Amino acid sequence: MSERTASAPTSREGYGYRYTFATRWNYNDQYGHVNNVVYYEAMDTTINRWLIREAGMDPLRGEQMAVCAASSCTFSRSVAYPDALEVGLRAARVGTTSVTWALGLFSGADEAPAATGSFTHVFVDPGTLRPVPIPVALRAKIEADLG
Amino acid sequence: MSERTASAPTSREGYGYRYTFATRWNYNDQYGHVNNVVYYEAMDTTINRWLIREAGMDPLRGEQMAVCAASSCTFSRSVAYPDALEVGLRAARVGTTSVTWALGLFSGADEAPAATGSFTHVFVDPGTLRPVPIPVALRAKIEADLG
Amino acid sequence: MSERTASAPTSREGYGYRYTFATRWNYNDQYGHVNNVVYYEAMDTTINRWLIREAGMDPLRGEQMAVCAASSCTFSRSVAYPDALEVGLRAARVGTTSVTWALGLFSGADEAPAATGSFTHVFVDPGTLRPVPIPVALRAKIEADLG
Amino acid sequence: MSERTASAPTSREGYGYRYTFATRWNYNDQYGHVNNVVYYEAMDTTINRWLIREAGMDPLRGEQMAVCAASSCTFSRSVAYPDALEVGLRAARVGTTSVTWALGLFSGADEAPAATGSFTHVFVDPGTLRPVPIPVALRAKIEADLG
Repeated sequence: MSERTASAPTSREGYGYRYTFATRWNYNDQYGHVNNVVYYEAMDTTINRWLIREAGMDPLRGEQMAVCAASSCTFSRSVAYPDALEVGLRAARVGTTSVTWALGLFSGADEAPAATGSFTHVFVDPGTLRPVPIPVALRAKIEADLG
Repeated sequence: MSERTASAPTSREGYGYRYTFATRWNYNDQYGHVNNVVYYEAMDTTINRWLIREAGMDPLRGEQMAVCAASSCTFSRSVAYPDALEVGLRAARVGTTSVTWALGLFSGADEAPAATGSFTHVFVDPGTLRPVPIPVALRAKIEADLG
Repeated sequence: MSERTASAPTSREGYGYRYTFATRWNYNDQYGHVNNVVYYEAMDTTINRWLIREAGMDPLRGEQMAVCAASSCTFSRSVAYPDALEVGLRAARVGTTSVTWALGLFSGADEAPAATGSFTHVFVDPGTLRPVPIPVALRAKIEADLG
Repeated sequence: MSERTASAPTSREGYGYRYTFATRWNYNDQYGHVNNVVYYEAMDTTINRWLIREAGMDPLRGEQMAVCAASSCTFSRSVAYPDALEVGLRAARVGTTSVTWALGLFSGADEAPAATGSFTHVFVDPGTLRPVPIPVALRAKIEADLG
């Protein structure tokens, strides 16, 4: 089974899909920064949005369910409301039954990402919860758009 | 400068501090599982609770501010409302200006953690945002309770 | 059809069920207060907890689904982490197909509530989404515990 | 002191300001509907966005702080991810020291609102927390744009 690996790009252009995640006043904590937990919400939202809107995945009636097996984030600069987070998505590694996404989170006019993250989805059968191969069409879409 | 490293224990007893994080009906997503983002909220809440309640850190008027530099989580089993998450905390590595916490998230009667995570805090000066040494009293408290 | 109406009690003892809702560091906004939205999360969590844990309602496989038709909250004093919210619940009005809950939210040693709220649930058939009568056993439980 | 009252309009055009609040996969609860608490987050976000972006209010360094004294929402139809909520804002009542906002929450192609809400802000001095008059410029902006 072929696999591809890629590091997290450090510019917006390195990501095949970008989604603007609006921040909210109540995301700022008492330090005046968006709380670290919100970055994961931004990453999770961006990946699901791509899977559902761009790749046509049906989270409820599909034959596969994407389950998060691992995630991580490295924070370089703080972000504050009202700045939006522009989240870039690419596929860092496409395995047989799993995909590891690489994400860059950008804000304002900064070229460099405020944070970079990774997120591994395992595709499972909704009934047995056993890993199943990534659908062929999804694999092709990932390679075309996010490789 | 002395440093200590420890892996994430796989039983509740391996963690010097444990906090019960209640789940909520609206934490369950349409798959009927607590969303992965909530695990980070549970970890962040547990660490801050220990810092504020047990170690006497004042997040607003203290001379140091703890900033999240990196975090990660590996998910082994799903959790669902109404199960609570019991979050175990220990110090995996205590450096000069940073602490890396190791966390185990347990639910129900299961001995093995549903997830394990790590979280690195850098201590900075609230004015300059430059790293500063971990306060001596905090270091002693970490070593006494979470080593 | 019998109906009962009651105002929102102003002391903790006036509520037949009380649930302690823990606050979190990131619930405090930049003013250092728990954001108003969190009060609704506390009310929603308390009602669902009572319905599921105390009244045995099964939100997914039950013959009725409780849908929120209206809610409101009046805020008297601000609350801040690390103070917990103690949420009191009683039934203000029990109709044929709906219940209006009255809630009091208390914090610290204060006798008077920091906020009072109301929340109207309509019971519907999960398939047709048409209103259906409140189950007899639930009505009896409400009258016994929350009247 | 002049006061103006207005009911919640039932079409999008009745609101002088409209903000599109994106929903997220994890906003859907196990019933497949956006949880009622999220509507309050949408309303709070829309009002603060207008105050900060359109009316130039500085939430941290301003001479007034807007505190939520009461809020309510009536839910007519459910909303589900991936539908966005378009939130309409107008001023229902402008008093001496407070404003009551009327909000309509719309989704998809529906003409009628999925929900309507109200939200009362009291303007207070950040130091004393005593009510203070609405700033003259803010009052003029409200009357020009949201009346």
